[in-house]
Formats: sequence, structure tokens, C-alpha cells
Amino acid sequence: MLVTNIGELVTCVPGFGDGPLGIRRQAALVVDDRKVAWIGRAADAPPADARVDAGGGAVLPGFVDSHAHLVFAGDRAAEFAARMAGEAYTGGGIRTTVGATRAADDEQLRTNVARLRREALRQGTTTMEIKSGYGLTVADEARSLRIAREFSAETTFLGAHVVPAEYAGRTDDYVSLVCGPMLSAARSAGARWIDVFCERGAFDADHSRAILTVGAAAGLGTRVHANQLTAGPGVRLAVELGAASADHCTHLTPADVDALAGSATVATLLPGAEFSTRSPYPPARALLDAGATVALATDCNPGSSYTTSMPFCVALAVREMAMTPAEAVLAATTGGATALRRDDVGRLRLGSRADLAILDAPSYLHLAYRPGVPLISTVMLNGELV
Amino acid sequence: MLVTNIGELVTCVPGFGDGPLGIRRQAALVVDDRKVAWIGRAADAPPADARVDAGGGAVLPGFVDSHAHLVFAGDRAAEFAARMAGEAYTGGGIRTTVGATRAADDEQLRTNVARLRREALRQGTTTMEIKSGYGLTVADEARSLRIAREFSAETTFLGAHVVPAEYAGRTDDYVSLVCGPMLSAARSAGARWIDVFCERGAFDADHSRAILTVGAAAGLGTRVHANQLTAGPGVRLAVELGAASADHCTHLTPADVDALAGSATVATLLPGAEFSTRSPYPPARALLDAGATVALATDCNPGSSYTTSMPFCVALAVREMAMTPAEAVLAATTGGATALRRDDVGRLRLGSRADLAILDAPSYLHLAYRPGVPLISTVMLNGELV
Ligand SMILES: [Zn+2]
Ligand SMILES: [Zn+2]
Repeated sequence: MLVTNIGELVTCVPGFGDGPLGIRRQAALVVDDRKVAWIGRAADAPPADARVDAGGGAVLPGFVDSHAHLVFAGDRAAEFAARMAGEAYTGGGIRTTVGATRAADDEQLRTNVARLRREALRQGTTTMEIKSGYGLTVADEARSLRIAREFSAETTFLGAHVVPAEYAGRTDDYVSLVCGPMLSAARSAGARWIDVFCERGAFDADHSRAILTVGAAAGLGTRVHANQLTAGPGVRLAVELGAASADHCTHLTPADVDALAGSATVATLLPGAEFSTRSPYPPARALLDAGATVALATDCNPGSSYTTSMPFCVALAVREMAMTPAEAVLAATTGGATALRRDDVGRLRLGSRADLAILDAPSYLHLAYRPGVPLISTVMLNGELV
Repeated sequence: MLVTNIGELVTCVPGFGDGPLGIRRQAALVVDDRKVAWIGRAADAPPADARVDAGGGAVLPGFVDSHAHLVFAGDRAAEFAARMAGEAYTGGGIRTTVGATRAADDEQLRTNVARLRREALRQGTTTMEIKSGYGLTVADEARSLRIAREFSAETTFLGAHVVPAEYAGRTDDYVSLVCGPMLSAARSAGARWIDVFCERGAFDADHSRAILTVGAAAGLGTRVHANQLTAGPGVRLAVELGAASADHCTHLTPADVDALAGSATVATLLPGAEFSTRSPYPPARALLDAGATVALATDCNPGSSYTTSMPFCVALAVREMAMTPAEAVLAATTGGATALRRDDVGRLRLGSRADLAILDAPSYLHLAYRPGVPLISTVMLNGELV
């Protein structure tokens, strides 16, 4: 399959074309066996069985959304409206969703994940991490992960999202449950990652370290919800443990920025959460200028960031965090891939998985320049048009 | 045609249902002869030839975007990226678009308007004002308005957008042109409104008053680009002249707020412009609390707000201007209609034009709660599904 009439081919491979995004013009791309098989000048394109006409639009790697909570039931629209009217966001709302999720049957949960995954796909997201974290019993975390696994290879066990109400005042006991039978069940359910909400009101550094350490020993990769509400210990812990990613990074000390810059831990920024909680935004410029690897993700969840739109996150990154459009696109593709320790997605080079987003716009700049506009005209996932 | 399985019917007619949006539940709606012919309990619905299943989604009046600049050629993506990188927005960029627009043939302009109008329609905008203002010669303003008129009954003559380069230092002469032959040509081209960019660097109060007064005498309704960059005389002038709308209202004195509240002039807020120029937002709360009528519109244009998305503007209004979701939806529908002095659109009651947006969400709250997500599943324009 030959992709042709490309306005600009954004490879996200610096050096493979112009600028930080490795942009090639007058280019074409051939997909074979679900992979990128050829990239070159359109005039030199080999014969192909089928053609995809990009209509002069920009072609990008599909977005890699490395942080999403899709397995839940119900919504919290009323809580959102109350918060926007000035009520403080306490995080207690997670328990509302836990109740609804436990009460839902598998089919309801599956239908909801499918809806959100499809919605994201239409907006160009070809890789999407999916977390558990609204079950918080052994059985409910396991089924959340089994359902997530139907939609993504990137599933994350987040039993340590919050201490459920029935364990109030017994955090040690809950941590034991998470580290023992719940982790075992999560492994059986195919989880690839383990994550902890390290925050005042959720899990402190010691509990978080214990959970991540036992998860890593069990063969799971580690990631951390870090420094969302306060400049707490999450980022330092993530770096200490060599986690793949520290997510949120909203409140950072200069030492946190330096720690991330000096590590292989990706700083995953989730500006949808700041938008929907009216929070200050993360210091993306400081992170980038210090040399940290930055990813952008949606944090899609019904409480604090109910968006599936990576283009929206790109627009926010540019407007609110002073990232350049190129930095934002790189963070939404290669950055997310690095946060998931993947090098087969998030870029377009020979052998990459054939995951593409074609824009109804001549340049990637339009993702930030045209905020809120559904600009994704065509998506290819694993070599197939969707 | 019967619209059924409605999650909530948002009539935007206070008193016709619950709350400020007049919401009715278990409701159905019948369209006949391009108008709303019946609204009542679904169980009581009359027989119908055809059915539209809203799938449990919210049904709203189509959005009324009362401020858009769609007749132009080219784009200014590079200027946008430079501005986001810290370069000041001078407004000089308008002349770039004037050059490209003059150089374009009619078919190029028509194609661009059609593309943007279709894009907006898919996002629920069923009424869209379209301004001239990138021609700035008698012939180019006239053809801009003729092309606009192919797409909307709400066309606005904005010859006084900026003084074109060839009249630099001769503003009086340009104002004479606008008030004389250009206005005549605009009337012949079917313009319904006249607008002036009353701002430092564009047209001062005296020039603006002269242009609007002669336009009103020629039978055009008046609207003003007011107080966008500075707390200038635009709003006071709009109120003085009884203009239908003062648009932008970014920088207001307390006296401006009072003047708007004590008048029939709508305060039309354009948060897409503040988003894309990294400006402070208008004081929507002060306007609403004082009793002014507020509209939301996109300001769609290639320089300072290249969005066609009314849902995006609703989300910004809630996040950035502390409007409630209900206030924002009302401003995006009835408010826009009032700014265009229309009472047949922007609400759903007997006799209203059958312009509907059906959401892929159970409540209007999701327009703000799910920012950036294309939530409009179905649009009906003038009684026909699009
Ligand atoms: Zn999260
Ligand atoms: Zn304007």
C-alpha cells in the first residue's frame, strides 16, 4: 500500500528529514506486512497494489497515548460542573467511580472501553496505554486488566490508585493486598506495567516504593503518578527506581527537574488534567531546557481529565506550557513511545509499525494552530485503514 | 420527522423545562416543514414518517456562531508558531491575508469558505455569520460578500478591518472609500451587517462612528470589534449607536461593563482568540453578573483564532472565564442568535428553525467536561440531516 500526495511527512526521526521532526517533502511511504517498508521521494515510489491519497495533508505517526484510565463505569459530569463553579478538587471522587465500576458487569465495562478507544483512534491515537485502578479488589482489578488487554498490549496495574473505603485507616493492610494476591492476579491478567498514585491522600513514598519494588520483581515495568497535587516524593522515587515514566509532574522542585533530566525516566505531562481541574500547568520548558525526555498523554479518566484527544493536548502544550508545536508533536508520538519503552511506534522509519494519522491540513502546525478542530482525516492502525 | 430516544432535550428556553437551559427529559421532538412542530413527552409523540434516534444523547439547538471571518486565502501557521514562541502579536499579519485573498480567484475563496463552513457544521454550527474584510478594495470586498452570501444569510461588511497598505497615512481617504463606493457595493452584494475594527492601529472612535452611522443609514445592522487589545472606545461606541453586538470585550472598564448591561448590545466573547494569542480572557463573570447578554463565537480567522469549533469555545468559557456550562451553552446558542437579532434559531420551541445538534453524550455538560473531543454525532440543518 502506497501513501501518496503527502503535504509533509512528519517522521519524528530527527536527521531523517528537516528539523526536530525529521520532515520530508514530496515524499511517499509504502506499507507492507503491517510495517513501513519504504520511505522516499514520491517520484521514485515503487508500484503498489493499493493507494492512499493523503490529499496534500500532513502525515504523522499515530499518537502514542501512554496514560489513560479507560476501565470504569458511570461519569462525573456533575462533580466537574461543581468543581468549575469553585468547589475544591479533593480526589475523593475516585471512590465514586470505584463504586460504579464494581457494580458494572463485564459487558458494560467492555462497551465503555471500546467507545473511548474508538473515539481516541478516530483522533489519531494508535497506541493507548490502559490502566486498571477503579476495581481495587483482587477480582475487580483482574477483570479490569483482562478487559483492558482486549484493547491494548500496554496495560497497567493500578491497584494503588487510592485506598478503597473498606480499607480506610488500614493502608498497610491494603498495600499488603496490592503486593500479594492483587499483584498475582494482575500478572495472570496480562498486565505489563505497575503504577502507583504517590500523593498526599493516596500512597506515601514508602508504600509506593514497596509496591513498585515488588511489582518490578514480578517482572512488571514501573511508572508513577508523581507530583500532581504537591511537590512530593513521587518524581524522586520514580528516578530512584528507574521507572519508565513519572506522570503529571505538575509541581516540581529544581531538584526534581534535574533528577528527571539526568535519568531515563520520561516526564509525562497530562495537560488535560490541568485544564479540567483549573490547575497550574507543569513546567515543560524547564524540563525540556534541562534535557529531560517529555511525553504528552491524555490522562483520560472520568474525574479529572475526560478527554481522549491528543490533538487537544498538543494545543494545550503549545498554548499553556510554551512547548513549540514540534516539541509537542514529538512528545505526543516518540515521547509516549519512550514512556512505554517502545521503539516500533511513535515514529515513521523502515520497520516501524504502520500506524499513521493523516491530517486535513498541510502541516503538523495546524494541530496547535487550529485548536478544537477535528483535523484527523484518516487513520491507519497496524497497516489497516480504520 | 420524529427525534426520539433523547437523553435530555436542551431547549434553551428558560421556563420551557428545567433550569436556565429549559431542559426536558423523556421528551421527543417533531420536525415538519423545516420547523419544530411539536415538543412533548416521548410517550405522547404523534406518528411520523421518519425517525431520528438520538441514541440517548443530549439534543441541543444548533450553535449560532455570530462572528467568523471565512473569506480568505492562505494560512498563517508560521506566524502562529512565531507568536507562540514569544513574538508579539501586532495585528500587522492581517495584511498578509489581504494580499493572499486579493491574489486568489473566486473559486479558491469559495472552496475555502465551503471547507470551513462544512467543518463547523459537522461540529454543530447551524448558523454562521461570515464577514468580509480581507479584500479592502471595492471589488474584493464585494466579491467576498457575494461568496459569503452563498453560504449564509448573515453576511457582514468589514471593509474597516484595517487600513490597507496602499492607503498607509491616508486613513481619511480610506474611510471615505469605505463609506462611499465600498458600502454601496457591499449593499449590492447583499450584506446584512456592517462592522468596524475599532482599535489602536485600526480605526479610532470618530472614524468608526462615521462608518457605522453611514452603514446604519444605508439599512445595515451594526456590530463592532471592540476592546480586543486595549480598553478603548469600542464598547461605548457600540452602546451609543445601539449596535447589535460588541465583539471581543477583552479589556473592559467597569463603565464598559455597566454600559453593556444597561443596553441591548450583546457582549460577544471570542475565547478562541485569547487562546491563540495567549491573551488574558474577557471578564465574562462581571458581564453576566451585571446582567449583560453574552454570546460566544469562534472569531474563526487565519491570524488570531483559526478554530471553527463552538464546543471548544464552550469548554474555554467554562475553564477560563468561569462561566457555568449552562451559561456557556446559552451564550453559544441563544446568545449568538440575539447578537444576530434572530429569534428563529438558537433555541428549540414551536416554530423554531429545525436546527439541531445531537451529542454522543447524555448531557450538555459533556461539551465542557470532555474538551477537545468531537462529541457532535448528528446535525440537522433546516430540517435536514447533514
Ligand atoms: Zn492518571
Ligand atoms: Zn473578528
